[in-house]
Amino acid sequence: MQRGILTIVGAGLIGGSIGLAAKARGLARTVRGLGRRRASLDEAMRVGAIDEGFVEPPAALQDADIVVFCTPVDRIAEQIVDYAQHCPNGALLTDAGSTKAAIVEAVAGKLPAGVHFVGSHPLAGSEKRGAGHADARLFEGRWTVVTRTPATDPAALERTVAFWEALGSRVSIMSPEAHDDALALTSHLPHLVAAALAGGLPADLFKLAATGFRDATRIAAGDPELWTAIFQQNREALLTALHRFNERFTNFWLALKRGDFAAVKTLLTEAKEVRDALGS
Amino acid sequence: MQRGILTIVGAGLIGGSIGLAAKARGLARTVRGLGRRRASLDEAMRVGAIDEGFVEPPAALQDADIVVFCTPVDRIAEQIVDYAQHCPNGALLTDAGSTKAAIVEAVAGKLPAGVHFVGSHPLAGSEKRGAGHADARLFEGRWTVVTRTPATDPAALERTVAFWEALGSRVSIMSPEAHDDALALTSHLPHLVAAALAGGLPADLFKLAATGFRDATRIAAGDPELWTAIFQQNREALLTALHRFNERFTNFWLALKRGDFAAVKTLLTEAKEVRDALGS
Repeated sequence: MQRGILTIVGAGLIGGSIGLAAKARGLARTVRGLGRRRASLDEAMRVGAIDEGFVEPPAALQDADIVVFCTPVDRIAEQIVDYAQHCPNGALLTDAGSTKAAIVEAVAGKLPAGVHFVGSHPLAGSEKRGAGHADARLFEGRWTVVTRTPATDPAALERTVAFWEALGSRVSIMSPEAHDDALALTSHLPHLVAAALAGGLPADLFKLAATGFRDATRIAAGDPELWTAIFQQNREALLTALHRFNERFTNFWLALKRGDFAAVKTLLTEAKEVRDALGS
Repeated sequence: MQRGILTIVGAGLIGGSIGLAAKARGLARTVRGLGRRRASLDEAMRVGAIDEGFVEPPAALQDADIVVFCTPVDRIAEQIVDYAQHCPNGALLTDAGSTKAAIVEAVAGKLPAGVHFVGSHPLAGSEKRGAGHADARLFEGRWTVVTRTPATDPAALERTVAFWEALGSRVSIMSPEAHDDALALTSHLPHLVAAALAGGLPADLFKLAATGFRDATRIAAGDPELWTAIFQQNREALLTALHRFNERFTNFWLALKRGDFAAVKTLLTEAKEVRDALGS
């Protein structure tokens, strides 16, 4: 991006980390934050994630080279379409949303000529929120999915890939639908399962919940509103993932019920092989 | 235990950590390891978890004050009954097994006079194995469940509590059955669920499994043989826990299927409240 202007919409944990990484790596002349709450912009300024904070879109988007939307998934598409009219010719718009098909579809054909949107999803983050938890190295060695459809502008795709790579990320290019199917299994299903585990723990057993339980349910501390919106946007793929999980869960259950411990051990062994292959 | 002889049966991660903690805190004059494999004993010696290693029970148990069984749950009861005959009058036997009712029941009434067994379960550990991963501070601030039945000798119970407290642990006294019901929910169910999640992940999605998936499935890397034995011994309580989890999981599923996102958000909020209450 030749050290131009980077505007981050929603300077929370992800947006703030993009700002910190961009500044640490000298990717932008100026990093601007655009948000609804002054307090969030001030926090992002304080940690050095943005140079300037704006609550009015036109001023934040003037002369912007790249605009990254890091807001909740149910607001991204509307903001992109809305804010694109304030962006200069040649501006690249991308996002960091956990779902892709609904966003990409809602934006398609609605941008002014010369302004391009390419969907992205950096697979990094945490159950924490706010620029106070931002980390300049959040994307290092992690994967970012960048989405391509038949309508995607090739140059915009290339700039988007280069942007995430410049932040330290590895990039995988997929269709929005393939992304959503994959993330339903690797992220949205585990979140739902962790929430079902955590929500079912009676208060008198809290002290007996050791490291294993805490690890297994950590993601359930995520923001319910953000995750409801993710589940809503990826409902179909998540339902398929739930079905897939339920099959294996039921196999475990039946094996246990029948007292077939050879089958139980096989299921545990298959799981260990996958988990060992993932690494720490 | 007035700096007597502590014998650890099975000097792996837990046994090794007990040895390291006992030595760091000056709890024993001598720490002995008893095992079937020389290599494991040598590793425990090398990391300083035991002073002496034995493969023959009589020599390891002679004059022992406290004997702690840290072997797989399906071997503990048999070893206790077998080894008790080599223990001196006044010896206290305890264990670190993840299940309690089956062990306590199998041992009841089978020990020589003057030798007492009290069941224990330190809620500490990891998916790793071997004394090479032992940690002198493993029990600090963690809970250990010590079990009591109508037949438990009060003085032996008191010595067992004092032993774990001296290692840095907090102690909760429960019946073996209450322990097993609780741990089915806080440990065995999460293990099975994590294994169902991990086992269902296709290999082409491994790279898209980020921190959330890794945390949620970390315990699935545990040893399948050890965990099969745990599931077998605690089958009834685990089946009840599976039923309880399944109710909440199904509520999520139905809410998603109906498109009732207010219900989804309520379930996510209940989960977050529990997880936040647990702390990191």
